[in-house]
Amino acid sequence: MSGPDVHLLSVGTALPGPPVTNADLARRFGMDPLWEQWVDTFIGTTSRHLSIDLDSGVPKAELADLGERAGRIALVDAGVKAGDIDLVVMGTSTPDRLMPTTANVVADRLGIDQVASYQLQSGCSGAVQALDVARRLLDGDRFRTALVLGGDVVARFYDTSQDLRKLPPAQLVNFVLFGDGAGAAVLSTDPVPGSAILRTTATRLVGLGSAPGATLEWFGPNDRHSNRPPATEDYKAIEERVPTMAREVLGEILSSLSWNGEDIDYLLPPQLSGRMTEKVMALLGLPSATEVSCVAETGNNGNALVFFQLERAFDKMVRGERAVGVAIESSKWIRSGFALEGI
Amino acid sequence: MSGPDVHLLSVGTALPGPPVTNADLARRFGMDPLWEQWVDTFIGTTSRHLSIDLDSGVPKAELADLGERAGRIALVDAGVKAGDIDLVVMGTSTPDRLMPTTANVVADRLGIDQVASYQLQSGCSGAVQALDVARRLLDGDRFRTALVLGGDVVARFYDTSQDLRKLPPAQLVNFVLFGDGAGAAVLSTDPVPGSAILRTTATRLVGLGSAPGATLEWFGPNDRHSNRPPATEDYKAIEERVPTMAREVLGEILSSLSWNGEDIDYLLPPQLSGRMTEKVMALLGLPSATEVSCVAETGNNGNALVFFQLERAFDKMVRGERAVGVAIESSKWIRSGFALEGI
Repeated sequence: MSGPDVHLLSVGTALPGPPVTNADLARRFGMDPLWEQWVDTFIGTTSRHLSIDLDSGVPKAELADLGERAGRIALVDAGVKAGDIDLVVMGTSTPDRLMPTTANVVADRLGIDQVASYQLQSGCSGAVQALDVARRLLDGDRFRTALVLGGDVVARFYDTSQDLRKLPPAQLVNFVLFGDGAGAAVLSTDPVPGSAILRTTATRLVGLGSAPGATLEWFGPNDRHSNRPPATEDYKAIEERVPTMAREVLGEILSSLSWNGEDIDYLLPPQLSGRMTEKVMALLGLPSATEVSCVAETGNNGNALVFFQLERAFDKMVRGERAVGVAIESSKWIRSGFALEGI
Repeated sequence: MSGPDVHLLSVGTALPGPPVTNADLARRFGMDPLWEQWVDTFIGTTSRHLSIDLDSGVPKAELADLGERAGRIALVDAGVKAGDIDLVVMGTSTPDRLMPTTANVVADRLGIDQVASYQLQSGCSGAVQALDVARRLLDGDRFRTALVLGGDVVARFYDTSQDLRKLPPAQLVNFVLFGDGAGAAVLSTDPVPGSAILRTTATRLVGLGSAPGATLEWFGPNDRHSNRPPATEDYKAIEERVPTMAREVLGEILSSLSWNGEDIDYLLPPQLSGRMTEKVMALLGLPSATEVSCVAETGNNGNALVFFQLERAFDKMVRGERAVGVAIESSKWIRSGFALEGI
């Protein structure tokens, strides 16, 4: 890509409330202490944040609420006003509704108007897709400064009335793995002190002929009696493919920038679960890079995760340091990543 | 925007079955002949195509089925192979599921892989949003040839078990206005004989502080008892704002290209309903331009409509002729448009 450098000016994140620990879940759903140990050991996710009240199941926040909070933090931290934003790009798998988009509801609440605004339907690669689209559109002319958003809210799938003790492990694990949150970043062709250059972004569909590793359904009023399963996950396929796909993205990004593995100061690996992240890190084999992960505390909050990682990395990065992030979407197998350099 | 010219190589469309006339609807739902005349006179939409069997309410096609058909036609007409496509962009308000994207299911069925693929959540401006994103990303380098898709399927909202005679007109009209379909276009920086240049695309959020003119909800398994209305439309606001917004887009596009109204050979106006399109045409006041509309026969099939109009215009256009298209989304008020020139 020719065109001006695109800078990351700021990152903001929002969580819907305090962490919900494995002990909290065990208490709420009457699971025994052995289960709690099993989660700690084999999933490695110790807490998540939920936009529903765990006791009543009543929603506490919509995605737009979280997106607005994260977006406001990102704007303030960047020193950018709503009127400076000329592009909004958001990634989510769980928009609040089909119309209007959550991106546009958030834009409206932040006072952003008269701009191009896109909402990408996407799973775990959505934050990178949104960064990718924004980076490619920022040409320093028509588009100079973008608000990029990502987030997910699982409330509509988190059925607190279920008896978890009767669920098979493959369904039960969803109550442990997933969480809610939103993130935002300001990208601009105009740098500010302390900004970093988004050197590259990449996203690639690689699912030809493969069954989806994850599906998520929505229902309309005519579907009330539908027997389609709301969500499915093929954990075996995910375990098999994600580490390899992560290695492929990393190689692709390093090669496109003529960077070596030893040049990487921070590695932001995929965040499916605490344990899966460890496996991926082991395979990627970059011992000199500092791992930047959050999933063990935040849970897998989908399109928000990369922003939580970015926030942590961006805080630490100094001039000349390099970070690479990788996100893998198992839905129809998308591998994606990005590279950042402190200036 | 600098960069190479982006050419429209082909357009394909797909409908899920034969037209369903107002008489068919009247027969099916026991409406009286006066109602049929009322629809003809005040809505001006005489037929639509539905992806459900009208008698049983059973779905006959998913959006991916229609998108695949439209996409295949567009690829064949462009003389482009699946392996030549390096970018997929789809717009829809009613994806088949939240994950995987319908864009990626269609890509898979067409044999397209190893590409960047984006699905935009969008209402009536979605086809233009998809054309816009594709045009801006096509740089002749990383991205040379894009498959752009758009479509909608209303099956999950089209409740054939309802007693239409008891519905208030504002809800009843939805059974008349909307239809199903999909469209596709191949855009490329490499022209072929007969292609046209996509001179510009524009999309702009203009809803600051306004209530949505239309909403569409999705439901998860936890929402089964939700009392949120599945769809709402503020027809008064739509009637008031859409013609003015259409005039603003037209002005913006002409001005950005230094074209005059008399230079326009084909005008593709917004397609909310047959009658609304007439009103918009009257306000736009381009008597020398040929109107290219389809909504009276296809119904408002959302993200597909622009492709049906494009198909008709593209068939007719000869060297030097100019077309302008306008699409307005009332959900959170988006105005969008594009310009095409025969070469």
